[in-house]
Amino acid sequence: MTRIALGLQYIGTDWSGYQKQPSRDTVQDALEIALEKFACTPLATTCAGRTDAGVHAVEQVVHFDTELNRPAQSWVRGTNAFLPDSITVRWALEVAPNLDGQDFHARFSARARTYHYVLYNNPNPSALLAGRAGWVFRPLDVERMRAAARHLIGTHDFSSFRAASCQANTPIKDMQELSIERRGDIIVFTVRASAFLHHMVRNLVGALVYVGLGRQEPEWMAEVLLARDRDAAAPTFMPDGLYLAKIDYDPRWGLPQEAAPPLPWL
Amino acid sequence: MTRIALGLQYIGTDWSGYQKQPSRDTVQDALEIALEKFACTPLATTCAGRTDAGVHAVEQVVHFDTELNRPAQSWVRGTNAFLPDSITVRWALEVAPNLDGQDFHARFSARARTYHYVLYNNPNPSALLAGRAGWVFRPLDVERMRAAARHLIGTHDFSSFRAASCQANTPIKDMQELSIERRGDIIVFTVRASAFLHHMVRNLVGALVYVGLGRQEPEWMAEVLLARDRDAAAPTFMPDGLYLAKIDYDPRWGLPQEAAPPLPWL
Repeated sequence: MTRIALGLQYIGTDWSGYQKQPSRDTVQDALEIALEKFACTPLATTCAGRTDAGVHAVEQVVHFDTELNRPAQSWVRGTNAFLPDSITVRWALEVAPNLDGQDFHARFSARARTYHYVLYNNPNPSALLAGRAGWVFRPLDVERMRAAARHLIGTHDFSSFRAASCQANTPIKDMQELSIERRGDIIVFTVRASAFLHHMVRNLVGALVYVGLGRQEPEWMAEVLLARDRDAAAPTFMPDGLYLAKIDYDPRWGLPQEAAPPLPWL
Repeated sequence: MTRIALGLQYIGTDWSGYQKQPSRDTVQDALEIALEKFACTPLATTCAGRTDAGVHAVEQVVHFDTELNRPAQSWVRGTNAFLPDSITVRWALEVAPNLDGQDFHARFSARARTYHYVLYNNPNPSALLAGRAGWVFRPLDVERMRAAARHLIGTHDFSSFRAASCQANTPIKDMQELSIERRGDIIVFTVRASAFLHHMVRNLVGALVYVGLGRQEPEWMAEVLLARDRDAAAPTFMPDGLYLAKIDYDPRWGLPQEAAPPLPWL
């Protein structure tokens, strides 16, 4: 038995989220259907972080166990041959059986997750970015959003940004990075944390947009955090601009993770 | 009666090309349906350059005549309210009735057209770019393609790059620019000419890719051009990476054309 790790890229627009469903219209269903066609046997997969409907991944990480012995690139080409264009396997690796007594696990070996939220800030919507970016038509002040974001860095109780549906054990997470960059009409939020609550990034972006529009002062973010109450924050932002970008693992696993996504602003 | 010019952006993936069809599943059909809903009267539109199925536009230019008197931004917002997400009106302008005795005409007033072809050059396909870029999995040599492209600059008979279906009066066109830039795994071809033959950009890219792969020498491009025979060139390249980018007009028309497309590599 060997354990294979895969790097998976997808556009979530036409899928009902990542996680398997009886309707079989999710990214995981499509991946497992393709793996089964290629391997001629069902293979159960585990991912690093589930994404919601409409959310994309630059690099999701998945693992599965198999008795089959095939070269890594053959898993890439073979699975891609059976996947629709909106999902691609970018790399595969047979992971070493253990490291300090632990087997590799896409979810439990992950040390941190990075998401990007891409937002188009222009008076009119852009067809080229439909489904690929959130849209705010009034001007956003990036400096105000940065000032608000500083309140979120560090270890906090993020209950104010947690969806009612969230199944996490604890609302306390370690926010390691929250940077905001503008490039013309594109604003990219980069958020890195040990782990995230359900809807946390979209809820954070919703609150930051309130500050960027001048509806709230940057200091309001500290109040929202302290309230530990979902109703204290702003509405959940649309999924369209959200990309799961990178999962951090111990470099000793040697995963061939990609440095440069094909979209230059990510 | 006033003449309105529109800047139109679209993703062509799900449309059967630009030009109106009885099936009503084209970009022009969707635009005219939306205009009619907003204006409560049918409006016949004329575009600068028809695009094929799967081809996108950063900025197509369209005009129509109307008895209605509405502010320009109201044409933008009102039409967008009835358009699907994959088509957006970016700007509108009531054009002056004439300039040196000529009315503005989206097609006949155009002085030049610019297209981009975006190509992803990586061993594996990218879901993020599916439908948005062509894909070549073997490494391409940009310097070789640039050397080949130099043979195409200037006024030539482009019959070797002309589809059998082409209805142009003459195969002689003035190629003003053909530049090729690499940005990581993305290669962008920028082609500017007075006008184009049917499939001309995709046929040029197909031939340049042959040279970039080392299947032909750069000098082969001069032979292909001289042959004036479609069979002398390479197959038509896929539409996915083709974007109608910019139509040049006399600046005295004052069209509010956009300087910066939202995709930073274009």
